[in-house]
Amino acid sequence: MNVFILGGDARYIEVIQLLAEHGMMVYVTGYDSLPQSKPNIIASDMEKAPMEKIDAILLPVQGTDQDGKVETMETRQEIYLTEKWLRKTSNHCVIYTGVANEYLETLAAETKRQLVCLFHRDDLAIYNSIPTAEATLKIAIDETDTTIHGAKVAVIGFGRVGQTVARLFYQVGANVTVAARKSAHFARLTELGMTPISFDELEAFAGEMDLFINTVPALVITENIINKMKKDPVIIDLASKPGGTDFHIAEKLGIKAIHALGLPGKTAPKTAGQIIGKVLLHLLREQQAESR
Amino acid sequence: MNVFILGGDARYIEVIQLLAEHGMMVYVTGYDSLPQSKPNIIASDMEKAPMEKIDAILLPVQGTDQDGKVETMETRQEIYLTEKWLRKTSNHCVIYTGVANEYLETLAAETKRQLVCLFHRDDLAIYNSIPTAEATLKIAIDETDTTIHGAKVAVIGFGRVGQTVARLFYQVGANVTVAARKSAHFARLTELGMTPISFDELEAFAGEMDLFINTVPALVITENIINKMKKDPVIIDLASKPGGTDFHIAEKLGIKAIHALGLPGKTAPKTAGQIIGKVLLHLLREQQAESR
Amino acid sequence: MNVFILGGDARYIEVIQLLAEHGMMVYVTGYDSLPQSKPNIIASDMEKAPMEKIDAILLPVQGTDQDGKVETMETRQEIYLTEKWLRKTSNHCVIYTGVANEYLETLAAETKRQLVCLFHRDDLAIYNSIPTAEATLKIAIDETDTTIHGAKVAVIGFGRVGQTVARLFYQVGANVTVAARKSAHFARLTELGMTPISFDELEAFAGEMDLFINTVPALVITENIINKMKKDPVIIDLASKPGGTDFHIAEKLGIKAIHALGLPGKTAPKTAGQIIGKVLLHLLREQQAESR
Amino acid sequence: MNVFILGGDARYIEVIQLLAEHGMMVYVTGYDSLPQSKPNIIASDMEKAPMEKIDAILLPVQGTDQDGKVETMETRQEIYLTEKWLRKTSNHCVIYTGVANEYLETLAAETKRQLVCLFHRDDLAIYNSIPTAEATLKIAIDETDTTIHGAKVAVIGFGRVGQTVARLFYQVGANVTVAARKSAHFARLTELGMTPISFDELEAFAGEMDLFINTVPALVITENIINKMKKDPVIIDLASKPGGTDFHIAEKLGIKAIHALGLPGKTAPKTAGQIIGKVLLHLLREQQAESR
Ligand SMILES: NC(=O)c1ccc[n+]([C@@H]2O[C@H](COP(=O)([O-])OP(=O)(O)OC[C@H]3O[C@@H](n4cnc5c(N)ncnc54)[C@H](OP(=O)(O)O)[C@@H]3O)[C@@H](O)[C@H]2O)c1
Ligand SMILES: NC(=O)c1ccc[n+]([C@@H]2O[C@H](COP(=O)([O-])OP(=O)(O)OC[C@H]3O[C@@H](n4cnc5c(N)ncnc54)[C@H](OP(=O)(O)O)[C@@H]3O)[C@@H](O)[C@H]2O)c1
Ligand SMILES: NC(=O)c1ccc[n+]([C@@H]2O[C@H](COP(=O)([O-])OP(=O)(O)OC[C@H]3O[C@@H](n4cnc5c(N)ncnc54)[C@H](OP(=O)(O)O)[C@@H]3O)[C@@H](O)[C@H]2O)c1
Ligand SMILES: NC(=O)c1ccc[n+]([C@@H]2O[C@H](COP(=O)([O-])OP(=O)(O)OC[C@H]3O[C@@H](n4cnc5c(N)ncnc54)[C@H](OP(=O)(O)O)[C@@H]3O)[C@@H](O)[C@H]2O)c1
Repeated sequence: MNVFILGGDARYIEVIQLLAEHGMMVYVTGYDSLPQSKPNIIASDMEKAPMEKIDAILLPVQGTDQDGKVETMETRQEIYLTEKWLRKTSNHCVIYTGVANEYLETLAAETKRQLVCLFHRDDLAIYNSIPTAEATLKIAIDETDTTIHGAKVAVIGFGRVGQTVARLFYQVGANVTVAARKSAHFARLTELGMTPISFDELEAFAGEMDLFINTVPALVITENIINKMKKDPVIIDLASKPGGTDFHIAEKLGIKAIHALGLPGKTAPKTAGQIIGKVLLHLLREQQAESR
Repeated sequence: MNVFILGGDARYIEVIQLLAEHGMMVYVTGYDSLPQSKPNIIASDMEKAPMEKIDAILLPVQGTDQDGKVETMETRQEIYLTEKWLRKTSNHCVIYTGVANEYLETLAAETKRQLVCLFHRDDLAIYNSIPTAEATLKIAIDETDTTIHGAKVAVIGFGRVGQTVARLFYQVGANVTVAARKSAHFARLTELGMTPISFDELEAFAGEMDLFINTVPALVITENIINKMKKDPVIIDLASKPGGTDFHIAEKLGIKAIHALGLPGKTAPKTAGQIIGKVLLHLLREQQAESR
Repeated sequence: MNVFILGGDARYIEVIQLLAEHGMMVYVTGYDSLPQSKPNIIASDMEKAPMEKIDAILLPVQGTDQDGKVETMETRQEIYLTEKWLRKTSNHCVIYTGVANEYLETLAAETKRQLVCLFHRDDLAIYNSIPTAEATLKIAIDETDTTIHGAKVAVIGFGRVGQTVARLFYQVGANVTVAARKSAHFARLTELGMTPISFDELEAFAGEMDLFINTVPALVITENIINKMKKDPVIIDLASKPGGTDFHIAEKLGIKAIHALGLPGKTAPKTAGQIIGKVLLHLLREQQAESR
Repeated sequence: MNVFILGGDARYIEVIQLLAEHGMMVYVTGYDSLPQSKPNIIASDMEKAPMEKIDAILLPVQGTDQDGKVETMETRQEIYLTEKWLRKTSNHCVIYTGVANEYLETLAAETKRQLVCLFHRDDLAIYNSIPTAEATLKIAIDETDTTIHGAKVAVIGFGRVGQTVARLFYQVGANVTVAARKSAHFARLTELGMTPISFDELEAFAGEMDLFINTVPALVITENIINKMKKDPVIIDLASKPGGTDFHIAEKLGIKAIHALGLPGKTAPKTAGQIIGKVLLHLLREQQAESR
C-alpha cells in the first residue's frame, strides 16, 4: 500500500518506520531529516508523488487548523491540505487523523473520502492509557513524600484511562478505591480486588485518602469533597480541559492539585508513536483486505 | 421493605439471611427448615401473608415452569405462582427471578407488575464469573497432569466470564492467550500482559496449547482447530448448551473435552447465594429510593 | 554423560526423557515399557551395562530400603543396589537419590562415591512448592462452599512451601495473613501486600479465618487456637507427618482438618517428574564441568 | 520506656512522632522546631534529662563522626556523644544507630552498653527496598522514552533490594530477567514468573535489554557486557559506592548510566522515617519484654 504522511510531531518518526518495516510505501512531507532512510521511505514534495496510487493519507494528531494548515516538524515550509490535492487521490483513499474539525469533515464529505479519527477509537485510547498511567505514577511518586506502596489512592472514573490507572496503582501496592457509577463496574472492581464506591460516597471517603486521581471529564472533585480532605493529599487530574477538579478551591485550601495533560507524548514519546503506528497499520490492513 | 420468597434452592438460604440482616421483612414459603430463625424471617403460607404490603417477590433462579410451578427445597407441597395471588400485592410490587419464560412475562404484563431477570444483569454475571472461574481452575488442576503454572492456556472469548477466567489463570502463573474479536479487547489484553489473538489465528496456535477454555456461546472450537491440537490438551467448555466445542470430533480424536455447566452453584454454593442476595439487596434499595 | 537409572515411579518417565533429550546416554532398569524409545534410552540389565563408563546413578525418590532394595514400576523383578555392583562404576560416579537412609549412606561412604539427596536441595523444594500450592488450592476450592476469592486465609509458616502457597492464594484474590517468626519475613510480607502476624497472635486471629493452611513441621495449630475458630473453617495441613495440627481436637470440635501429603506427585505427576529431571540435569552438567 | 534522641535528619520527625504515639517518653535534642508538641515529646538539654531512667538512645542514621559528633537539623549547637554522658544512663540502656564506626564501637564496649545498628538489619533493609524500588521506577520512567510496560528489563542481583525491584518492574508490566547465582533463586524466580539467568549469561542477553538495574555491590556490568548492549539502554546502578558498573566505559560508548544512591530519603522521606520508627519500636518492645 502507498501511504502519504503530511506533517506530524516526533511520534510520527516511529509511525513512519513501523509502516516501512511492514512493507508499506511511505511518502512523507514536512520533515527536515528522516531516520536511517529505507528504500520505501520517500521524502516527497506534495506535488510530485504518484497521487493516484495513494491509498491513505495520515495527518498529524491535531489534524489541520480551520484553514487546512498542517503542523510539521520542519519550519521552513507551510503545508496545507487542500481539496484540489485530495481530489488527485484515488476514490478509495482514506484520510487518517488524530482528531477532526469542521474543515476536515467538510473536506472529506465533499471529496467523498472516508475520514478516520484515530484518537476516537477505543483501542488507541486503551493503548494510550498505558503511558498515561505510567506518567501519572511518576508524578505521584514525585509529588508525595511517602511511597505509593501502602498509600490510599482514590481513582475517580473507571473508563479506559481509569481502568489502567487503577490497576497500575494497585499493582504497585497501593490501596485503591475507585469511584464508579455502573453496577457492572462495581462487580468488576470487586473481582479485581479493589474497593468500588459510588460518587455519592466520595465525600465520606475523602478524609482518609492520600492521593486522588481523576479521569472523569466533569466536575467531580467538588468543593464539598475538597473540604473533607484531611491528609494533605495530592490531586492529579487527567481529564481534558477544564478537568474535573475545583482547582480554585484546592488552591485556596493549600491542597496540591496538578492538571496533567498530554502525558503519553511527554514521558514515553517513542511508545506513543508506536501505538499510533500499530493501530494505523491494523486499519490499513483491514482497508487492504476490504478493497480486495 | 417486605419481600416474599417463593421457593428456591440451597443458595436462597444465604439470600434469606442477607435480606433479613439488612432489615428486610422476609416471608418465605417452600422451605422445610430455615436457618437460626430471626424475628424478621417468617415462614408463611402463601395465603396468610399480608399481601397488600409486599413490595417484592423473589422466584427461584429458574423462575417458574410453563404452568407457573415453582421449584422448592421442600418436597411435600407444590407451589404455583398465579395471577390471582399476584393481584393481591400492591401495584408497585416487583417480581424478581433468575430467568424468565413466556408464562412469567405474560403474567407480569397482565398484572402490570415489573419483572426483573437477575441473571440478565451485567453485575450478577460478573460476580458469578468469580466462582465460575475458580471452579474452572479446579477442573483444570484435576484434569491435567501438569501444573497450571507455566502451562499454555487458550481462553476463547473475552466477555464477562472470559475476562475473569483469563485473569485468574494468568494470576496463577499460566501463559495465557485470549481469542477475541474487538480491537478494544486486543488493547486491554495487551495492557493486562496477555497475548490477544483473533479467532482466525486460533488454528495456528492450537498446536502449542495445553489447555483450552471456551466462554463463547457459538461453535468456535471447530473440527479444523481440534485437528491441529498436538499436545493432547484438555478442553473445558463453559458456554451454555450446546457449548462451543465440536465434542463429537474431540471424542473421536481422543481429546478430553469437558462441558462444565452450572459451576457457581456447585463449587461455591454459599458465595453463589451471597451474590444473588447482594445484587437483589442493591435493587431493592434502588426500588425503595425510587418509591419515595 | 552416561546415567544409570535404577527403578523409580511414574515421574521418572519424564526424567528419562528429559535426560535423553539433552544428550545424555540413559541406561534404565526396572521399567516394563518405556516411552517412544530414543536411541539414547537403553533398557539395560544391571549386569550388561558398560559400568566403568557410568558417570551417575539415579535411585528412586525414596532411595532404597534398609536392604538396598529399590522400588520399581515393574513387578516381575526385584532390584537391589549392592556394593559389588557399585564398585564397578568409575570412582567419579555420583549417586543421586531423592532421600537417603543409613544403608545408602554407609554404602556411599564405603565405596567412596558421592551421594546427593535431591530432595534436600533448596531449589528442588522450591520448584516442588509450585505443584504443592496448586494442589492445596484445589483442595481448598473443593472443601469450602465459598470462593477463595475474598476468603480470609491464614498461612502458617513462610518457608519454601509457605511462600509459594501464600502468594498463590493472594494472587487468586484471598485476603492472606501469614504467621511467621523472623522480622525479615514480616518485612517481606509487608512488601508483598500480605498481613504478617506472629505465632502468638494466631489465637487472636483464629476466629475470623475461613481457611488455615499449615506448612510448619511442628505443633502450631494447637488446641487453644482451634478452640477460638468460629467460622467453621477448613484446615489443610501440608507439613510432613505428624503434621502441625492437633487433629484430635479438630475432630472432636467437628472442624474439618485435612492432612494432605505427597501432593506434587498426585495432582501434577508430569510436572513433578520434570522438576526432578531439571534439577538433576543441572547437577549432571555441574558434575561434567567440574570433571573437566 | 524513656528514649533519648540525639540529632537526626528530617526522617526523625516521623520517628519521634511514632514513638510518642505508642506511649514512649521521648527526650530530643538537636531540633529547632518539633511537630505539634505532645506531652510525651520533651525538647531537652543533654544535661537536664533524667539520665538514669533512659532505656535507649537513638543516634542519627550516620551515627557519630570519629570524634563523637552527631549530625543535627539545628545549626546553632554542636552535639557530642561522650563516654561521660553515656555512663549516666542505666546499665541496660541500649544505643541504637543507623550504622556504626570505630568510635561508637569502642564507646559501647567501654561503657558496656549494647550497640544496635539498625541499617544492618534484614527487616530494615527489606522495608527500605520499597521506597528504593519506587524511586528506581520513577527514574526509569523519566530516563526512557518508552513505557516500562512491555520493556525488557534486566535486574542484576536478587538480594533484599533486587527482589523488591524485580517484582515491582514485573508488576508494572515489564518483561523481567534477573541475574542470580543461587540455584534456589533460580527456582524462586521461576515461581514468580520471571526469567532467571546466570551472571555468565548476562553478556549474551545484553543486546536485547532496554534497561539494566544493578543491585550487586561488585563489578558486574563489565566492559564486555556494555559492549554487547545494542538498544541504547539505560543503566541504573543502585549498589553503594563505587557501584557495579564500569561507568567509564558506559560514558565512552554514550550509554546512559545513572548511579542512584540514597533513594529512600529522597523520594519518600516520610515513609523512610516511618520505617526506621517501626523497626525501632519493635526493638524497643523486645528490649522491654526481655527486661521484665
Ligand atoms: N492526561 C492525559 O494525558 C490523558 C490521556 C488520555 C486521556 N485523557 C483524558 O482522560 C479523560 C478520560 O478518558 P477515557 O479514555 O478514560 O474516557 P472514557 O473511557 O470515556 O471514561 C470516562 C469515565 O468517566 C465517567 N464519567 C463521564 N462522565 C461522568 C459523570 N458526569 N459522572 C460520573 N462519571 C462520569 C465514565 O463513566 P461510565 O463508564 O459510567 O460512563 C467513564 O468511566 C478524558 O477527558 C480524556 O481526554 C487524558
Ligand atoms: N459454565 C458455567 O457455569 C457458566 C457460568 C456463567 C456463564 N456461563 C456461560 O458462559 C457463556 C459466556 O457468558 P458471559 O457472561 O461471558 O457472556 P458475554 O459477556 O456475552 O461474553 C460472551 C463472549 O463471547 C463472544 N462471542 C459471542 N459470539 C461470538 C461469535 N460468534 N464469535 C466470536 N465471539 C463471540 C463475545 O465477543 P464480543 O465481546 O466481541 O461480543 C464475548 O466476548 C454463556 O454461554 C453463559 O451462559 C457458564
Ligand atoms: N504436603 C506436601 O505435598 C508437601 C510438599 C512439600 C513439602 N511438604 C512439607 O511441608 C513442610 C514445609 O516444607 P518447606 O520446604 O517449606 O520447609 P522450610 O522451607 O524449612 O519451611 C518451614 C517453615 O516452618 C517454620 N518453622 C519451623 N519450625 C517452626 C517452629 N517450631 N515454630 C514456628 N515456625 C517454625 C520455619 O520458620 P523460619 O523460616 O522462621 O525458620 C519455616 O518458615 C515440611 O514438613 C515438608 O516436608 C509437604
Ligand atoms: N541506591 C539506594 O538508594 C540503595 C538503597 C538500599 C540499598 N542499596 C545498596 O544496594 C546494594 C544491595 O543491597 P541489598 O540490601 O539488596 O544487599 P543484599 O541483600 O546483600 O543483596 C546483594 C545481592 O548481590 C549479590 N552479590 C553480592 N556479591 C556478588 C558477586 N560478587 N557476584 C554476584 N552477585 C553478588 C548477592 O547474591 P547472593 O544472594 O547469591 O549472595 C545478593 O543477591 C548494596 O550495595 C546497598 O548498599 C542502595
